[in-house]
Formats: sequence, structure tokens, C-alpha cells
Amino acid sequence: MRAVTFQEPGRVAVEERPEPEPLAPDDAVVRVEASGICGSDLHIYHGRVQIEPGFTIGHEYVGTVVAAGDAVTGVREGDRVLGTFHTACGTCFFCRRGVYQKCDEARVFGHGATLGSLQGTQAELALVPRANMTLRRVPEGLSDAAALFAGDVMGTGYHAVVAAGLKPGDTCAVVGLGPVGLCAVMAARAAGASRVIAVDTVADRLETARALGAHAVHGVEEDPRAAVKSLTEVGGVDVAVDAVGHPGALDTAIRLARKAGTVSIVGVYAERAEVHMGVLWIKGLNVISGHANVMGHLDSVLAMLATGRLDVSPLVSREMTLEDAPDAYAAYDRREALKIVLRA
Amino acid sequence: MRAVTFQEPGRVAVEERPEPEPLAPDDAVVRVEASGICGSDLHIYHGRVQIEPGFTIGHEYVGTVVAAGDAVTGVREGDRVLGTFHTACGTCFFCRRGVYQKCDEARVFGHGATLGSLQGTQAELALVPRANMTLRRVPEGLSDAAALFAGDVMGTGYHAVVAAGLKPGDTCAVVGLGPVGLCAVMAARAAGASRVIAVDTVADRLETARALGAHAVHGVEEDPRAAVKSLTEVGGVDVAVDAVGHPGALDTAIRLARKAGTVSIVGVYAERAEVHMGVLWIKGLNVISGHANVMGHLDSVLAMLATGRLDVSPLVSREMTLEDAPDAYAAYDRREALKIVLRA
Amino acid sequence: MRAVTFQEPGRVAVEERPEPEPLAPDDAVVRVEASGICGSDLHIYHGRVQIEPGFTIGHEYVGTVVAAGDAVTGVREGDRVLGTFHTACGTCFFCRRGVYQKCDEARVFGHGATLGSLQGTQAELALVPRANMTLRRVPEGLSDAAALFAGDVMGTGYHAVVAAGLKPGDTCAVVGLGPVGLCAVMAARAAGASRVIAVDTVADRLETARALGAHAVHGVEEDPRAAVKSLTEVGGVDVAVDAVGHPGALDTAIRLARKAGTVSIVGVYAERAEVHMGVLWIKGLNVISGHANVMGHLDSVLAMLATGRLDVSPLVSREMTLEDAPDAYAAYDRREALKIVLRA
Amino acid sequence: MRAVTFQEPGRVAVEERPEPEPLAPDDAVVRVEASGICGSDLHIYHGRVQIEPGFTIGHEYVGTVVAAGDAVTGVREGDRVLGTFHTACGTCFFCRRGVYQKCDEARVFGHGATLGSLQGTQAELALVPRANMTLRRVPEGLSDAAALFAGDVMGTGYHAVVAAGLKPGDTCAVVGLGPVGLCAVMAARAAGASRVIAVDTVADRLETARALGAHAVHGVEEDPRAAVKSLTEVGGVDVAVDAVGHPGALDTAIRLARKAGTVSIVGVYAERAEVHMGVLWIKGLNVISGHANVMGHLDSVLAMLATGRLDVSPLVSREMTLEDAPDAYAAYDRREALKIVLRA
Repeated sequence: MRAVTFQEPGRVAVEERPEPEPLAPDDAVVRVEASGICGSDLHIYHGRVQIEPGFTIGHEYVGTVVAAGDAVTGVREGDRVLGTFHTACGTCFFCRRGVYQKCDEARVFGHGATLGSLQGTQAELALVPRANMTLRRVPEGLSDAAALFAGDVMGTGYHAVVAAGLKPGDTCAVVGLGPVGLCAVMAARAAGASRVIAVDTVADRLETARALGAHAVHGVEEDPRAAVKSLTEVGGVDVAVDAVGHPGALDTAIRLARKAGTVSIVGVYAERAEVHMGVLWIKGLNVISGHANVMGHLDSVLAMLATGRLDVSPLVSREMTLEDAPDAYAAYDRREALKIVLRA
Repeated sequence: MRAVTFQEPGRVAVEERPEPEPLAPDDAVVRVEASGICGSDLHIYHGRVQIEPGFTIGHEYVGTVVAAGDAVTGVREGDRVLGTFHTACGTCFFCRRGVYQKCDEARVFGHGATLGSLQGTQAELALVPRANMTLRRVPEGLSDAAALFAGDVMGTGYHAVVAAGLKPGDTCAVVGLGPVGLCAVMAARAAGASRVIAVDTVADRLETARALGAHAVHGVEEDPRAAVKSLTEVGGVDVAVDAVGHPGALDTAIRLARKAGTVSIVGVYAERAEVHMGVLWIKGLNVISGHANVMGHLDSVLAMLATGRLDVSPLVSREMTLEDAPDAYAAYDRREALKIVLRA
Repeated sequence: MRAVTFQEPGRVAVEERPEPEPLAPDDAVVRVEASGICGSDLHIYHGRVQIEPGFTIGHEYVGTVVAAGDAVTGVREGDRVLGTFHTACGTCFFCRRGVYQKCDEARVFGHGATLGSLQGTQAELALVPRANMTLRRVPEGLSDAAALFAGDVMGTGYHAVVAAGLKPGDTCAVVGLGPVGLCAVMAARAAGASRVIAVDTVADRLETARALGAHAVHGVEEDPRAAVKSLTEVGGVDVAVDAVGHPGALDTAIRLARKAGTVSIVGVYAERAEVHMGVLWIKGLNVISGHANVMGHLDSVLAMLATGRLDVSPLVSREMTLEDAPDAYAAYDRREALKIVLRA
Repeated sequence: MRAVTFQEPGRVAVEERPEPEPLAPDDAVVRVEASGICGSDLHIYHGRVQIEPGFTIGHEYVGTVVAAGDAVTGVREGDRVLGTFHTACGTCFFCRRGVYQKCDEARVFGHGATLGSLQGTQAELALVPRANMTLRRVPEGLSDAAALFAGDVMGTGYHAVVAAGLKPGDTCAVVGLGPVGLCAVMAARAAGASRVIAVDTVADRLETARALGAHAVHGVEEDPRAAVKSLTEVGGVDVAVDAVGHPGALDTAIRLARKAGTVSIVGVYAERAEVHMGVLWIKGLNVISGHANVMGHLDSVLAMLATGRLDVSPLVSREMTLEDAPDAYAAYDRREALKIVLRA
């Protein structure tokens, strides 16, 4: 089969790879019809996430089940399915608490040996372990692109605001308007936020946020704190999302949150960083952090996509084919698109 | 001043009454510019709620502060304000827990001696005790009718679904499509419900619910359980609202809820009733009941009305004047309108 | 192997039965070292729960794993384990929300065809499906009797108060002091309840409750409402548990709860019943109902038993052998013991 | 009247000061019978918190109401009362959400102009604004020392674990065993924690923690992470409390928490600090921070003290008189006592 593989920093290839076979009773094999290129894929592309040359990459996927082990009961051969970007066992301490993203046995598609040696989904076929947990049937009428989003980016946007406790009528700020930030904007609106303030420095992204119903504020040319002050009753938002993963963004989120508000950190941190603990503490802020519980939110996100409460079409800027992957990565790296879908 | 008073079952009058004066340091007097007629007013009109003849009725109001005691800090003279249907002290055991509707000192406007001897707001002037808790400034640009709704019916609709724990993507059924039920439909949509199933037997109300985005189901000519089965993944809704207050409606709500779902009872119960405890128990349902925490939800509801996330205009079917009150009550009693606003 | 089987109402037998074999990859077989007789077993004994003659009964068990399928990863051969009274799949809609007691594939041990045709655990060997979910290793130092309780009755007592939202310092009333009620008393104390009022009409049970730290009140000779009034700041308790499953007990629980309190119904209801909806509604009570989420609480309950925060020894009134089962059932039926443990 | 006043860093005096008079309708005056010296007082004593020379200090107090304004309804003249360390208005945005510690009008006793110019309570008489919110009657039988703790340090210990979501059976680590840390240990035990690991470097404090039921671990001579690993099922605790307010303590708390656990920061931060965001994020931790909601927890804490569920007597190491204040501060500064109570 054909598969997109990492070669060296800045270079991916489309190669012939052996077809996967289900081995465990709860494995399934999916014929991938569409896969997405995601911000995390760029980390691999740039060599910031170490991965073996020749390893198949990609972790967003929608397709059709072509084989399933005996213990697979949630989906069956022929089902059109989508999957989450990682697997979960369903029975460990963390899964039993519904914190699937912290499963002791979690494996991430397309991230090499460090995250479980699970070949990626930018390929004609993908092996999906723990299929009962990892796959879900695509609701009637849902497009491939929408289904792709549910298993990763939109699940993260939903998590950013719902896991942070946003209630209908609350105010929300989103710092960083990449795909995750824009999904957070959409989720906040769909969850009933009265005002969403969206902060970035890229005009296109601000424009998209505005089209999604947010108050778009340029992070440098304008003053996000002044904007939040004028748009909220108490001079700060109930939920401030850091969708960047950089101390400057966190600092902004801390400053935009109201007293006793929540800072929601979905942007990735890997190192020590200076944090204004004094402001955090005197405001009495709550913080949630870490990978989103995409698997836990999947039913809700799918239901909202299927009924039009969430609509990701403004975010899909390009469709290409699997064979175009090298060009697609280069284009995505040049930020020419918010999301590229690779069709089989 | 002119005021609408209860005379005897089926008869209200517009009479001259003495103007109120603020007595306590946290009292205010409001010049009422618009007041609403509500379902609860009909209970008085029909003599089902006992009240002294000559007592001023009404409990929904928007107007301007014309006097305020020394301890009133939340609003000031000249402010355009709305108020909740009841007062709360802010400091008792229940207020300290934010359960304002159960305040030990709560008094309800226009309900006679049994609910605190507080004259009603269908009058030119209204005395408002506990003004810091009871009054709130009307946000810029909000219509009188919208403000009226915030302090009673829409607060109840919001409570029906939000206090029941509805999360974005959840499914919801609303049994009974009077003003409260329709507000619950709106609130559920605004809170991100993926599907709202609305049940009633009156064609107009079903039509309004449909216009608000619900799946409207006739309670007798159609089969609500079959509708819910076909529209939900697990054969029942996450939240089922009884907006009627009748054992038949409760029975329907219990049957429409999914296993481990929530039944939200905002319809009023005053007596013993037969409940299908077996179905409730075997499904493992949760129940919330009682008056809505309108005061607790007021900021959120106002913010949603002010930013257009909630829009009550489809529910305001008629505007009349205070002097028209006898005709207005008669029309409301004939169900000719969902909401009648009386202008000063 | 030897097994306790239902014969006809009022009669159980100890018979020779075929040894179970693991069939599915996530099945295990447990050599049962101790099993309990529970109130639910009496329903079978009395013929109120229909079950096939010759079916092995019992659902509380502790023992050693003697065989395990390939997919069993949570426990292994030779482990000393306890199990919950029912199985759960871990992957359905309800399991994904952690509501394991409502699993779409749940099967209850020893309850015949109606609850999943799963042979009981009052036997030398038991087949345990879904072993990853259903079995847990017994913590070091925990007695057989304590382990038995964790998988059923103590899990229910914990659920009765913790799922009802009891917070440290809250007050609690427990109506009905059978094993579940007494476990609720213990759980409430261990969870930091400032006062626990325990209501029953049996002197022994009241005495046990008193020894566990509760204020014991005779339900007929004393006035539970007066007791609660004198012992609580606001004339009612934060959480009122109905541990009986009878309209009279529910009525008492509703009357003992404070305004905006919670009624927790762990007693079993199977039919329609008259409920004082007027009192429930005007108080604004919340209700939780249904089978306890024993599987969801299992880690917590085991940790509390293992560290002595919960101590079930006052409840184990008799130990007998499997061969004594007919006598044991008769004694339990005469209420001579709160809990009888059958040893292999 | 006699009052303890700040003079200069390292020096307090007992001086004659004018008696306070109630000015606002919701003011009260309390004859202080006992006041406490707290860690925050040392910040003033050391000049780290700037305050006007001659300003009366102290913020823990129990006494008798000797005067009350017209609007004071919660307590009356002659009542034995305790108070919280700060006032709250009860009606602002934050009070309406029950976040009393962030009240827009909050004033802290004995902290000079920067925190509201409210004279302290280490005096014969204290003016208490917002008496309905700030004062509570002392439950029958509660000692002065216990009542003192309720309004500040024990309320903070309760907050540290309960606001962090600790559930019965959970595990907890407390880093820093000053009075607040030890109160957190007690609160965790009383709330049903299965294991509490207490970390400090002072032998006496470790001994006290051990006596309170904790596993005491020396922060330098032993390895807290190894201790937590051996005592918890998943290699980390559910709730890790930073009761110090120093980056090293926060780092330890972050490392002791389990994946998806909660770090509870009750230690005070005033500046920027380096935080291991990488560990925080990859673990997916939640954080709560800031002043404790002592007023919100007051009913619960008082009920637990009054019924013996919490017992602060091990923490009160010395009783002195108001006139001894200079010696008392010097002794407290030398860490000769965990808590000193000054009697009038």
C-alpha cells in the first residue's frame, strides 16, 4: 500500500509499505479515505519530534473498516468510521475515570517509538488497536473533513472551553488562532458564550475568527486587555484559552482572565517557563492543562457536527491527494492553509 | 398612582393606589415602564392562589429607579433596571450557597400575604426591597420585553436546562410549550444541545418551537417516545424537561430520558402525585425540581439576551397599556398570546 | 464443583455443577474462597425475582484467579481478587461516561436469564466475563469479608452519599438501617459529615448505627423530623438517603431534607408509587436514584477499606461454609445476621 | 481601648486607641475575647507587607457583639461570634457566585491602607463591617481557639483539599507543614482521604503530621517521590497541596501529583516564578490557586469543629494576653509555636 513516511527534517515521501493485519482480537484495519495534516505533523516535519525515518505519519483519519478482530463489537466491516488520534485501553485507572488521554496504554498514531510505535494514518490502510474505544461510526450525512476534525482538532477546541467549565452566557478569550484556537472559538460560541474575544497577529486568522462570531483583536497593534475590559462586565473573561503553548500567550491568558476565572492551556508545553505566579495567585485563577480528552468528548462533538451546531467548513482550506503529500506538507509549512485534507 | 389589582376570581381592576416610599436602607422605588403578564398571574386570576382583594399584582418589570435607600449601591437613581420576581437577602444559609430562590427571607412581588405581602409591579411605581440583589441595570440596547423575560421566564428556561447539567452536544426534550417551555427550548439550543425535541398538543406552540430549531412532536397525534428513539443514539435524551407540572407530563419526561439522564421539573407541583418510581429507579435517573434560580442565572441570561444569543421576540405576542389590564388578562386567559407586555 | 442453587421459593440446595471454562478472551475463572449472602439474594429466595430452578446464585465474591483469557490484562492467574456484582463492557455509551451500572451489556451474577444468564458466585468456581472491568486485585492486608463488601454493599453505601454530593461538614439522614443503610452511615461519617441521623425501627440496628457514630432515631417511637430539626442549623439535612425502597421511606427522606437538599434513593423501586411532589417541588429538592455505581467507586472504596477509613467488621455477623448454605439462607431470612459470609 | 499596633519592622506595641463606633447600618462592634497570631501577621512584622505605623493589626478573632447597626440581622448584641479575616459585600459579581474571597469590596482586617484601611482585631474592640456576611455565631461548646481557626487557617486547610475536589478514598500530599499545611492534613483526613503524605523539613512538624494520621516524609533526608510511589496505586496523588508559596514547593507538588491530578496552591505567590510547565502539561494537571474561600466554607468548617470531626487543639501551642503581644510576636517569629492565642 501507499503511505506517507518521514524521511528527514523537511522531507516526507510517499512510499510502498506492507499492508497491516489485525493481530489482537480488538484490532481493526481501516481503508483510509481521507486523512488530515495537523500542526503536530509539522513538529515531526521539522524534526522537533524525533521519529524513525521511514515511519508512516498522520493521525487524523476517516475511512471504512475492512477487517476486525473477534472482540471488536463497536464497529463492523463495511462501516464508515472515524478515529481518535490515540488509542486507549478502556480499563486502566485513568480510563476508568474517563481521562482517556492519560490512558496508561495509550498509543499515538504516526509518532514513532516514543509514543507507542503505531504506524500513522496518512496511508491507504491503517491498523487501529483498541477499535472499540478508538473508532466510532460516522453519523449519517457528515462529511469526511468534519469527521476528521472530530477525532482531533475540534475535540481539542471543545475540550478547551467545555472542560474549562464555560457556561452559557460566559465570556471567553482565545489566544492563538491556529486550527485549535479557531475550533475553540467555534466551540465557545456553540456552547453559548456571550462574547468571544480572539487574539492573534495574522490578519487572515483574525478575519476567520470574526466570521465565526468573535471579536477579533490584533495582539500587537491593538490592546487585548483594553478590548476585554470594554467587552466584559468585570474587566476579564470567565475562560481564557492559551492555544499557542508559549509563555507569552500564557501571560496574556492570565491577564485576560477575570478574578477566579479559568485559564485553559491546550497549547503544548515541554519545558520550564517563567509564569507570573503573582498575578495568577492574587486573581485566584484555576488552570486546566494538557492533551484534550478527545475520546471523552467524541460523542458530543460528533452530534454537534452532525446537526450543524458546529461547522468546520471555514477551516478546510485545501483538499489534495495522498500522492501530493510532499507538496501538501510544504504548503502547510508555509501556512497557506488552516487544514489540508489528503484523499486516498 | 395607577395599579392593577386582584378583585375576585376572573376579575382584575386598574385602581388608584398610594405611591410607595423606600423604608429600609436597601429599598428602592422603580417607575415601571413595562410589566409582563405571566402564567403565575393566571393562577391568581383564577383564584387558585389566594390573595387579598385590592392587592396589586404582577412580578415582571422593567423601569427607572426614582428613589433608593442609603445602602443601595448596585443601582442608582435614574438607572434603567429590571428586577427578579422575588427578593433575596443575600446573607442567609441559602443565599450564601447561591440558592437565592430558597432564601429564608424571600418575598414574591404581587402574591399577597402568603408570599411576603409585597405589592406587585403591574403599577406605575413599585417598591423593591433588597435592591442590591433584586435589581440589575439593563444592558445597553436591550428591549423592555427582553429585560422582562430575564427576571422570570427566560431565567426559568435557562435553569431548566443548565441547572440540569446539559452539556454542548447533549440531547434535550421539553414537555409543554408554554412560555417557560419555549424558553427552555431556546436555552437548550443556545447552550449547544445537538437535538431538542419539543412536545405539546397545540399547533401554534409546536410551530413556534420548530421555528426555534426544535423537532416538534404532537404529544397525542404522534409518539414522542418513537421520535426520541429515532433522533438519539441511545433511545433517550440526556435532559428531559417537565415544563407543565402535571403527572402526565412528568411521566412523559421520565420515559423520554435516557438511562442515567436527568429529569428537570420546572412545572409547578403542589400536591401528592403518582410517579412511576420503578421506571425512574431502573433507569437511574436524576431529578432536579423547584423554582428556578433566576437571580443566580441573571448575569448569564442578560449577557445572552444583550448579545443576541437568546432572542425572545418570537414570544412577545402583544403589547397593551396598563389601563388595558382587564382586557389583557382576559385575552391571556383565552391563550391568545404567549406573553403580553403592559406599558405604563 | 459444589454450588448453591435456587430450587423453589424458600429452598436453596448445594449441588454438583460443571466447572466453568473461560470462553471469551477477556473471561477469567475464579476459585471462590468466600461469598456473601445479600439482601438481593433474599428476593430470589422468596421468589420475588424469577430465576430458573437449578441456577447458581450469589454475586459477592473473593477468591483466586485460576484461569484467564488472552485479553485479560488487569489481573493474572494466582492473583487474589474481588469482583463487582455485575459485569460491564467498558466501551458502550454508558461505560464511556463512567456510568458502569447502566452498561448496555451488563450481566448480573446469579440472577438468571433476565439479568444476563450469568451463573452465581456461591460456588467453588465462578466464570467472570469482562475480567478487566469486573475483577480487581485485593489490596494487601484486606480481609475476605471487607473485600466482599467492596464489590456490592459498601460500594452502594459510598454511592448513596458521595454520588449525592455530600461535602465534608454536611449533615446526612439515612432512612433504613439494613446493611446498605449502615454502610451509608459509615460512608457519610468517613466522608466528613458533621452529623448523621439514622432512622429505623429495629433496636439492634439503631444500636449498630449509634456505635458507628450516628444519632439513632426510632422511626415510630421517636420523631425523626424533630430530631433533624434539633440537630441541624436549617431544619433539614443536606443529604437524605432512602435505603429502604418503600414510599413511606421516601416520604420520610423528602421531609428530612433541607430546602435545595438531595434525596438519594438506593432502596429499590419497581412500581408506581405516590410521591409528595408538592413538598419535593416547593423545597426544590434534587434526587438521585438507581443502582449504585459500584464499579466506578471500587478504587476509592478499596483504598478506604485497606487504610481503615472504612471498617465493615461490625456488619459481619456470621461466617459459615458453602455446604451450610440452606441453613445460612434460613438464618438470614430470619434477620439473625446483617451479613453472612460463606467460606469454601 | 488597648490595641496591638505595628511600629516598624520587628516591633509591635500595645497602645491606647479610640474605641470604634458602628457607622454603616450593617456594621457591628465586637468585644474581642481572643485573637490569633497568624503567618500573615509575620509578613507585616517583617515589613514585607507595608502598613502604616500605629495601625492596629490582627485578623483572627472571637468575642461578643456589643453594638450592631439597624441592618445587622444575622447576629445580635450579646452573641458570642467569630469572624472571617476579611469582609465581603454579598452582592457584587463575585459574591453572587459565592467567590467571597474575591469580593470587589473586600477589606482585610489589620492590613493597612492597601487592603481596605480596616483596623485589626488584636484589640479590645473591633469594628466589623458587613456583619451579616463577616460574623457568625459560635456554635455551642466550641472553644475560642477552635472558633479562631474557623475564620482563617482551618478554612484555608479545608479549601486546600475540598475546593481541589478531593473525594473520599483519594490520596493527598501536603508540601509544607506550617499551620495551614497541618490544617490541610486534618481536612484531608476528615474528608476521607485514604492516604495523606505530609512533607516538611522540621522534625516537630513532621511529628505533628504523623500524630494527625499522615505519612510524614522529610523533604530532604527522604525522597517524597519515592514515598508517594510506594503509597499510591498510580505513582502519584490525586491532590497535591503547595502550602508554602515557593517555587521549590510548587515543583514538588507538581511532581507528586498523578496524571490528571490537581495541584492546590494555598501558599502565597506575589511574583514571577519558573514553573515546570512541561511536566504540568504532559501530566495534564489542574491547578487551583489563591486565597481560600473561608467565608464560603465557614458553615462546614464550624460544623466539623463543633462535632469533633476536626480538632485544632494539637495546633494551639500557646495562650498569652493582649498585653504580651510584643513577646508573643517575637516567640512566633522564632517558630516556638504553631499558633499563639492572645486573650483580652
